[in-house]
Amino acid sequence: MMKKLYLLGATGSIGLQTIEIIRSAPKDYVLAGLSGYNNFLTLKALVNEFEPEVVCVKGPVEAQEIMKEFPRVKVLFGEKGLVEIAGFNPSQDITIINALVGMVGLKPTLKAIEANRTILLANKETLVVGGHLIKEALSHSKAKIYPIDSEHSALWQLLNGEDIQTIKRLIITASGGAFRDKSRDELETVNLESALNHPNWSMGKKITIDSATMINKGFEIIEAAYLFDIDIEKIDAVIHHESIIHSLVEFNDGSITAQLADHDMRLPIAYALNYPLRKPSIAQELDIMRLNNLHFETLSKERYPMIAYAKEAYITGGSMRTVLNSANEIAVKLFLEKRISFLEIERIVRKEMDNHQVIEFPSVTEIYQLDQEIKKRVEQEY
Amino acid sequence: MMKKLYLLGATGSIGLQTIEIIRSAPKDYVLAGLSGYNNFLTLKALVNEFEPEVVCVKGPVEAQEIMKEFPRVKVLFGEKGLVEIAGFNPSQDITIINALVGMVGLKPTLKAIEANRTILLANKETLVVGGHLIKEALSHSKAKIYPIDSEHSALWQLLNGEDIQTIKRLIITASGGAFRDKSRDELETVNLESALNHPNWSMGKKITIDSATMINKGFEIIEAAYLFDIDIEKIDAVIHHESIIHSLVEFNDGSITAQLADHDMRLPIAYALNYPLRKPSIAQELDIMRLNNLHFETLSKERYPMIAYAKEAYITGGSMRTVLNSANEIAVKLFLEKRISFLEIERIVRKEMDNHQVIEFPSVTEIYQLDQEIKKRVEQEY
Repeated sequence: MMKKLYLLGATGSIGLQTIEIIRSAPKDYVLAGLSGYNNFLTLKALVNEFEPEVVCVKGPVEAQEIMKEFPRVKVLFGEKGLVEIAGFNPSQDITIINALVGMVGLKPTLKAIEANRTILLANKETLVVGGHLIKEALSHSKAKIYPIDSEHSALWQLLNGEDIQTIKRLIITASGGAFRDKSRDELETVNLESALNHPNWSMGKKITIDSATMINKGFEIIEAAYLFDIDIEKIDAVIHHESIIHSLVEFNDGSITAQLADHDMRLPIAYALNYPLRKPSIAQELDIMRLNNLHFETLSKERYPMIAYAKEAYITGGSMRTVLNSANEIAVKLFLEKRISFLEIERIVRKEMDNHQVIEFPSVTEIYQLDQEIKKRVEQEY
Repeated sequence: MMKKLYLLGATGSIGLQTIEIIRSAPKDYVLAGLSGYNNFLTLKALVNEFEPEVVCVKGPVEAQEIMKEFPRVKVLFGEKGLVEIAGFNPSQDITIINALVGMVGLKPTLKAIEANRTILLANKETLVVGGHLIKEALSHSKAKIYPIDSEHSALWQLLNGEDIQTIKRLIITASGGAFRDKSRDELETVNLESALNHPNWSMGKKITIDSATMINKGFEIIEAAYLFDIDIEKIDAVIHHESIIHSLVEFNDGSITAQLADHDMRLPIAYALNYPLRKPSIAQELDIMRLNNLHFETLSKERYPMIAYAKEAYITGGSMRTVLNSANEIAVKLFLEKRISFLEIERIVRKEMDNHQVIEFPSVTEIYQLDQEIKKRVEQEY
């Protein structure tokens, strides 16, 4: 059966890799909705190629242009448009791929849950910041959330047919980031250029810094706790230099399973698109000889305190997770602008967390307000 | 719910490790039947400890002794007794653990299938030699066969919740045996003492030689083809020195999963005993740091021809599998008696296979006759 898809964030990295899969199996999927923000030329080319029924663009200017060139397409724009597209054609069975970056991804996910849709989720903020809202919304919806990042897809695959009660530990691997071979003392003086020099592959600047501080693994641990409904104390990260093994599951009987694959995002995207089937994919194959001489290191809490901060924010709950995310976001921005040192990123996160008065079950509006507040305060301070 | 168990081959290595698990969870299992052959003192101690309802011993002398000392126990003996115990108390829900060594394990499995029992299978010959009979018997029975060796248990765990149609390859790992670092030329002159010096752990002599020739992996490939109903061309072995990863599954989408555990047979035994649950077990835990610096090598067909012979015997089918097994068994015996060289083991297997007229669907009687014939002929020749 052909799956009807709306892809939010089509012109980003995950979006474009999703497009590659859709192109490779035109009989399996129809891309009927698209959103794009900054990369307007690419978006227009995609609209031309896929002739979707609905498109969401950055603002009214872009909307006008699409309307003129593609008069049969329903055109939406802005944050409001993203929510609208997530719930568009509510009576139809449509899979939403949320490949948006940032807090803007939260509301569309909630809207898609309201429409009982299957949601392929790449947007971290949806669960990190809004997990409590998502969980609540899912409890009275038929919607499902499937992860499309390597680590969570690995766990998801390994948990197929397993009872979550028998899990001793979920282990997410981490490449270790740009500074994995540096001591805590050396981190005091590292600079932006060395931070952006990630050993395994090139990513966006924000995610590269998040890899170096390891807060990205903290976020992933929070996401895993939600996705698999498991005690966060049972989720750990381990350093694995080669990024061949993406996650491991330790069971209570002493058995461990691991998922391995080449670092190709098209694999987890295709897995989620085809679930519960597996279909031959265009993803790179892994030669099992690559298992030779892999390297693993335990992840020191002292060396990487951000993982502990993330667990703490999750356990404290409510608005503390927004503080974790927003304080980190603004701190990384300041570091990228060379206004603060590398270790000040985690100090800012710590300070914001320490000074925060928790709202237990913040609404989307409260989350957005808090985000603005934190960013403004930190920005002014430095 | 308490599981009622009959354990065939209780005094062997697998049998005794099964006993350890049973002892560790007296609320989960009741050991109500036992068989033992050579180790009569151990068997008597077990009868004393577990007070089973039925026991099978070597012969009438041992039977007399048990009857005298344990008058309330039903006593059976010999090969006939093994078949009888496998089907004893036919109206009851009893799990049969077949930890017998050799062809003697085939008939009890067939009997247990007739009684619709769950069978935990360690006996290789059941499937290698009698796979066609087992498959046929299973087709009109509610019986189930669960593997209790590390490699097949690993595959079984990895295939949980997966569709067999999506498998690209099942990969069983092999330690490589005593001679893994020797060239084909060097194998011409290796002797018994060096063959018995297995690098990873100590096993029985027969299985140690079977590891060195790698025919044991050939047997395991045949078993996997039956257990998971998968094309044998999709099953391979790979050399993995440390025996930490027991098997891997390659899926058609490029994903690979692996099962890891300490080399502790109690884990696969407990897994099969508790299936579909996993329960905390007494098996050794594996520190995932042991994943550091593992070694893998592709397995050369020229270096290890026995794996190809096994696949060939499986594909030819019928009585050819008996030839594979019986010719190897007698050849290994001759090698252990220092009557032939190491490489003559595989030459004998090759020659017997080449000279064999295949019976397409041999009965148990035909299998037994053929076994005797081959062994007699080869024994006389050397």
